[in-house]
Amino acid sequence: MTTHDNWFIEHFQPTGSAIGFRLTAKLDEVQSPFQKIEIYDSTDWGKLMVIDGAMMLTAKDNFFYHEMISHPVLFTHPAPKRVVIIGGGDCGTLREVLKHPGVASVTQCDIDEQVTRMAEKHFPELCRSNGDPRAELLFDDGVAYMANCPAGSVDVVIVDSTDPVGPGEGLFNKAFYESCCRALKEDGILVQQSESPLMQLELINDMRAEMGKAGFDSFKTLPFPQPCYPTGWWSVTLARKGGRGFDFRQADSSTKAFDTLYYTAALHTGVLATPPFVASALRD
Amino acid sequence: MTTHDNWFIEHFQPTGSAIGFRLTAKLDEVQSPFQKIEIYDSTDWGKLMVIDGAMMLTAKDNFFYHEMISHPVLFTHPAPKRVVIIGGGDCGTLREVLKHPGVASVTQCDIDEQVTRMAEKHFPELCRSNGDPRAELLFDDGVAYMANCPAGSVDVVIVDSTDPVGPGEGLFNKAFYESCCRALKEDGILVQQSESPLMQLELINDMRAEMGKAGFDSFKTLPFPQPCYPTGWWSVTLARKGGRGFDFRQADSSTKAFDTLYYTAALHTGVLATPPFVASALRD
Repeated sequence: MTTHDNWFIEHFQPTGSAIGFRLTAKLDEVQSPFQKIEIYDSTDWGKLMVIDGAMMLTAKDNFFYHEMISHPVLFTHPAPKRVVIIGGGDCGTLREVLKHPGVASVTQCDIDEQVTRMAEKHFPELCRSNGDPRAELLFDDGVAYMANCPAGSVDVVIVDSTDPVGPGEGLFNKAFYESCCRALKEDGILVQQSESPLMQLELINDMRAEMGKAGFDSFKTLPFPQPCYPTGWWSVTLARKGGRGFDFRQADSSTKAFDTLYYTAALHTGVLATPPFVASALRD
Repeated sequence: MTTHDNWFIEHFQPTGSAIGFRLTAKLDEVQSPFQKIEIYDSTDWGKLMVIDGAMMLTAKDNFFYHEMISHPVLFTHPAPKRVVIIGGGDCGTLREVLKHPGVASVTQCDIDEQVTRMAEKHFPELCRSNGDPRAELLFDDGVAYMANCPAGSVDVVIVDSTDPVGPGEGLFNKAFYESCCRALKEDGILVQQSESPLMQLELINDMRAEMGKAGFDSFKTLPFPQPCYPTGWWSVTLARKGGRGFDFRQADSSTKAFDTLYYTAALHTGVLATPPFVASALRD
């Protein structure tokens, strides 16, 4: 990371590419027990949250990620009531999940309370559902939380984590996926952020292989724009068991009673058609 | 642009954001009468072409742009035979257009011959259809070319230009669009690269307004990933006259006899569903 001339630049080694934003000020910084969290303001993207030098979110463009990690999986599950979010400390995913009236309870388990405190202070729009009576916010180890979850108790697990290094590393292997598989009901679905579908297809294949060893047997990777992440094109990967596919509740999605900026039923239909080069690399 | 520590970084002022690539070597440079063209090699993106400090294309990701500026418009037109490409000197768009067997002739008119010479040398894969007997390569002023085009002689005009500054500036105003409108047959279609659909929606509105003054009355902006351009999310805008919409030849697209890496009929259907925040900003 360099901030010379008021530009934040993140050099992302795994993709050999960089992204950056023109800053106006540094607003805040805290060193938690886990990571360094910085808040900047920018000329065109609103406030930025940076963790250990990696761009986490901007006020301007976080809706792509938060909508795409929430609505496709929730409209794929036949009737999601019990949702667990691992990570997700900025609370944007929680806000989107709680837009679904059928969801009865959501536990968000992020290891780092300071991420949520910084979000409450600098991104209050992401935290506006934190007081919803259906929401439980825990600050604990997500790996342990899933390991201790009662078997067959969860409809949807959303892994809204940082990259597979540092605090997020334990969320990308067979042991963690086994806990998720056990905690999910028979028709439950796991969804996880899965990096760049242009440059990190081998990582997605590795994730799927670990998920497969843990008992999942169907996988779907959905790409979407995410300008503040390296390559500007990001993905989530859904995993199910029992040979169930990824058809979604199109009628419910088309008539949803809440607003979104990016996600629509038509977009969901379109994104299920995996681009040929991605399908080929993922052996879909 | 800075290249310290072997990273090319483009600071894009209109969006307040930057993109960059890790370099291995500078391979070539030429100062043409119009602009400076540089060729770099990179660790993960193959060769890069940079014009006046702005990233034009990488070997790795140019297929998004070249497919999306070609196939949607060609599958929207009922039977495109005569195609004009304004700009497009790297020849990647020409290659995609010539994949359509019904296309009888394509004229590519780029003001800068050196772009094509550099593409032939460093991106031969983009130039492999340059010898097609249906292709004509002109190195001339695209504004003048369109102004002199016989009225009602063209099915599709593709404006594959640089940003609306420098040599590309004259390709974003009413006078140029009037020439295009006049040159197009009644059911003809204009398509033009239209910058970032996240950060430059006002520019797209301005383009559409100028196109409207020139006689076009229907517009459609199609977003797509383009990692090497600022924000990683780019667009083309289609314009028609006579109240025709943008339904496409879905059956022909589904059974096309050529390969693509990104474009499919299903993707085309999906991308016609404009994301809500884009539709709202563009008053679609």
